[in-house]
Amino acid sequence: MVGGGQLARMTCAASIGLGVSFRVLARAADESAAQVCAGTVIGDHRSVPDLLGFASLCDVVTFDHEHVPAAGLEAMENAGIAVRPGSRALRYAQDKRAMRDRLTGLGVACPPYAAVAGLADVTAFADRHGWPVVLKAVSGGYDGRGVWLCKTPAEAAEVLRHGIEVIVEEHVQFLRELAILVARSPSGQGAAYPVVQTVQENGICREVLAPAPRLPASLAEEAQRLGLAIAAELDVTGLLAVELFETPAGLLVNELAMRPHNCGHWTIDGSQTSQFEQHLRAVLNLPLGTPDPLAPWTVMVNILGGADADIRSKLVHVLAADPGVKVHLYGKPVRPGRKVGHVTVAGSDLQALRDRAARAASYLADGVE
Amino acid sequence: MVGGGQLARMTCAASIGLGVSFRVLARAADESAAQVCAGTVIGDHRSVPDLLGFASLCDVVTFDHEHVPAAGLEAMENAGIAVRPGSRALRYAQDKRAMRDRLTGLGVACPPYAAVAGLADVTAFADRHGWPVVLKAVSGGYDGRGVWLCKTPAEAAEVLRHGIEVIVEEHVQFLRELAILVARSPSGQGAAYPVVQTVQENGICREVLAPAPRLPASLAEEAQRLGLAIAAELDVTGLLAVELFETPAGLLVNELAMRPHNCGHWTIDGSQTSQFEQHLRAVLNLPLGTPDPLAPWTVMVNILGGADADIRSKLVHVLAADPGVKVHLYGKPVRPGRKVGHVTVAGSDLQALRDRAARAASYLADGVE
Repeated sequence: MVGGGQLARMTCAASIGLGVSFRVLARAADESAAQVCAGTVIGDHRSVPDLLGFASLCDVVTFDHEHVPAAGLEAMENAGIAVRPGSRALRYAQDKRAMRDRLTGLGVACPPYAAVAGLADVTAFADRHGWPVVLKAVSGGYDGRGVWLCKTPAEAAEVLRHGIEVIVEEHVQFLRELAILVARSPSGQGAAYPVVQTVQENGICREVLAPAPRLPASLAEEAQRLGLAIAAELDVTGLLAVELFETPAGLLVNELAMRPHNCGHWTIDGSQTSQFEQHLRAVLNLPLGTPDPLAPWTVMVNILGGADADIRSKLVHVLAADPGVKVHLYGKPVRPGRKVGHVTVAGSDLQALRDRAARAASYLADGVE
Repeated sequence: MVGGGQLARMTCAASIGLGVSFRVLARAADESAAQVCAGTVIGDHRSVPDLLGFASLCDVVTFDHEHVPAAGLEAMENAGIAVRPGSRALRYAQDKRAMRDRLTGLGVACPPYAAVAGLADVTAFADRHGWPVVLKAVSGGYDGRGVWLCKTPAEAAEVLRHGIEVIVEEHVQFLRELAILVARSPSGQGAAYPVVQTVQENGICREVLAPAPRLPASLAEEAQRLGLAIAAELDVTGLLAVELFETPAGLLVNELAMRPHNCGHWTIDGSQTSQFEQHLRAVLNLPLGTPDPLAPWTVMVNILGGADADIRSKLVHVLAADPGVKVHLYGKPVRPGRKVGHVTVAGSDLQALRDRAARAASYLADGVE
């Protein structure tokens, strides 16, 4: 797995039971996954020689992020390495304009959007769809961000000033955000997890409710069909996470990711097959596992770095207060707002679970319940 | 954790989520746990310098087996290292005569037994309790065995000929074998898993049923109280597994182990807190997790090495045949009869679960369902 973040760390844990010899390509020995993976190789995912050297140790190469340049992906593929997902699929997780164009071509409902060559394109779009608009970097971004809500032409001009490629999208008035996570193997087998509700704050996932409460069966089936269809059409191998807006007019696709995803962290404790095991099974072309949940409800809340950097000293209080909470720490230095872990609780009383998970995550982050 | 076997391997997997920096002292880099643990140190658990060098890297030292000599344990303790369980507790997992004497002193029911200085002690014991008798090595054994069923004085003499210390025990006519697994932390908190039934063949655990079917609540409570009481009396820190005989006259203690145990492998997939996470929480003096089961029944079957050494090529068939089976492989070379992995299934139909688990384990071992 290229990338040494928490997704690779949790995939490492899942690899142990499967008896899979697991390696990560990490940028430094203190990265989240590098701390725990016996097969760590230090290198740069933007370097073709580093990628080829790493891949020469592997039967299959997969990814914990979308940041490997196309040249690196293609170099591995040209060297005969099994790259999963492949470069032709990954393009749609790397290039938001290509993703929008392709999904629209497939008849998949997306928010209204347009290419942007200059500010005139933004204002013309806003004339049709209204302010505010959303500008999205086609890939990457700046200052660690890739999405900007712009209420005025001046705000849009400020984004464009950075000279990055963007698209403009309608600021969708959604009822809530949902996500569908599916797996697909090279032989074409697919499996869909239950549709979940995600709760975002300031563009960061805070909470996931599995399954999404009060979701009509018809919408749940539509989302699962949509996820499996996109995975098949784009020839995704491994996991595909599709972030969705639920609107009065139906489901709109917001984002795609082709890797384990925050919306699936609940599956470690809440499903018969964790998303990390499922991703390994899919990219290794092993038969997929049952995605069924283990409890009526599972709630996941991210631990975001707070004012107090010392999580370990607070762990004892959280575990003492709630012996049923599952805490997952990523071994990352605490910085305000950074995802440094998550907590999961499962059971039958959704509101009680939400309270327990929020309390545990809040205390770990800030020392306040 | 001293020892690089599958128990350390599975503890390594559990350490990742807890954010615990985990090391193993393994004898070789290809041992089961050494393959997956980023913090592996190569050394000999019988060497005091190796133990002290390893312990100097750790806040707490624990064990995946009982084979560290008392001198090594005491050297670490004298150096001020937190050794859990400590040498005074571990003695009763290392010396079967001391264990029998201590438990008997505590009023815990055990099979009738006697010390053995020579063959006359065995025949005198058999005169009172009948043949066959069981000879048990006080520690260790020979030819990889430590327990012998002897039907005649000649068979007993053959064991004694090897010059090892043994005790003699009655060959108990039990109804079935049970096991109780508890955890105890240095601060004295205890937690008991449900009582399980274990099915042994030729002295090797084949199958575990959790919880033990049709066990009267009074016996289950007695077993849990017994496990917690022994852990407290012997000042065990970490896990304590107590193997029990269920007899018409009640429960008898067969064996003790102070580490994760085969009778608790079902907890990885079948309990809110796996025994491996629980052991870490206990030895680190973190509050213990809920030992509650996730399903009405969980069945674990060991994969014993069969005629065909290539497990990986059979894995695909097992996963395809049963997407709900959980397979755990230990990364060990296959040798006939050796534990090389286990499978777990959980659900509500016990007989169906037993069939599924047996079929998966049998196919992985021998290519035959």
